[in-house]
Amino acid sequence: MNFCSKCGARLSVRVPQGDNLPRHVCSACHMIHYQNPKVVVGCIPVWGEKVLMCRRAIEPRYGLWTLPAGFMENSETTSQAAVRETWEEAQARVEIHAFFSLFNLPHINQVYVIYRGQLRDANFAPGEESLEVCLFDEAQIPWDAIAFPVIEQTLRLYYRDRARGDFGTHAGDIIRTPDHGYTIDMA
Amino acid sequence: MNFCSKCGARLSVRVPQGDNLPRHVCSACHMIHYQNPKVVVGCIPVWGEKVLMCRRAIEPRYGLWTLPAGFMENSETTSQAAVRETWEEAQARVEIHAFFSLFNLPHINQVYVIYRGQLRDANFAPGEESLEVCLFDEAQIPWDAIAFPVIEQTLRLYYRDRARGDFGTHAGDIIRTPDHGYTIDMA
Repeated sequence: MNFCSKCGARLSVRVPQGDNLPRHVCSACHMIHYQNPKVVVGCIPVWGEKVLMCRRAIEPRYGLWTLPAGFMENSETTSQAAVRETWEEAQARVEIHAFFSLFNLPHINQVYVIYRGQLRDANFAPGEESLEVCLFDEAQIPWDAIAFPVIEQTLRLYYRDRARGDFGTHAGDIIRTPDHGYTIDMA
Repeated sequence: MNFCSKCGARLSVRVPQGDNLPRHVCSACHMIHYQNPKVVVGCIPVWGEKVLMCRRAIEPRYGLWTLPAGFMENSETTSQAAVRETWEEAQARVEIHAFFSLFNLPHINQVYVIYRGQLRDANFAPGEESLEVCLFDEAQIPWDAIAFPVIEQTLRLYYRDRARGDFGTHAGDIIRTPDHGYTIDMA
C-alpha cells in the first residue's frame, strides 16, 4: 500500500493520534487506511448421507479437495455468501440449515465461517474454480488430499457430531507453527 | 476509492474477466481492489450476576450504552480481539469462555462476533472511547439507551439463555427496513 486511494498522494506508516498500531496514513488528506481480516464463508452441502466437495481448479492448492467457500462480499449475509459460493463453485442449490463453525486463521488474516446445508436436488457440476465436484460418503472423503487444514478440521468435527447424533457449533483457531505445520485450538 | 493504492493511477469501476460484480480496477497496473465486510468483535463480560457495559464517548451513538466491541485487527484471533477491546474500552481484564453469537449487518458491511467472558477481577475504568463503565444487574440494564440493535439482541439472548440455565450459540441477521427500523432474522 503506497498511495492514498482517496486523493492519490503518498502514504506513510505511522501510529495515528489516539491509536496504538502503525497504520497507512495519507501525507496530504490525512485519511487513515485500515487493513482488517477478511471473512471466508463456506458450506457443508449434504445430500442423504453424502457431502459435496469440490476439487480446486485454482491456486493455492490446485487439484486438492475443499468445501464450497470463498470471500464474503459487501451487502450480503454469511448465509447468503454460503449459498452463493455453493452455486459458483459446485453449480448446486443449497438450503442453509445452521451455523456450524468459526475458525480464525490469523497468519493469513482470515476468519472462516462454515454452515451446514442441504442440497435442494442432486444437480451439480464444476464451476469455473473447480475441476470436478463429487458427493462422498464418509469412507470416501479424500483425507490425504484436502486443500486446507480448516476444511479438514471442519469435516472431522462434522462427522464426529454426526456419529453422536447431535450437531453442535464450534469455534477455534488454526495457528501456523514455525515448521509450517499447524496447531488447532478449540475455544 | 479513486486511485490505485499500489501504483497511484486512476481506478475505474468494471466487472473483471471471470467475475460477476463491478470492482475498482487500476487502469495502469490492472490490480483489482476488492472491498469486503469487516468483523466487529465484542464480549459480554460477566462479574458474578452482573454484566459490564460501556457508555460511548464517540460517535455514532455518543452517550448510549454498549458492550465492549470493535474492529478486529490483522494477525489476531476473534477471542484475542474480544480481550483487547474489553481492555481498551473498559480497562478490564476478561477471560473468554465461549463463542456466543454471530450477527450480519449487511447494510453497513459488518459481521459481529460476540463471546461470553468472565472478568478476572473487579477493576475497570473508562477507556478513551468510553464516558463511563458500569456493572449492571439484569434489572438495571438501560434497555432504552442501548447504542445498537445488535447489542440489544445479543443481551436479550444472553438473559434468555441464562434464565434457561443453558447458554447456546446464536447466528442471525439484522436487516435495516426502509423506515430506518430493523428486522432480526435468527438462523
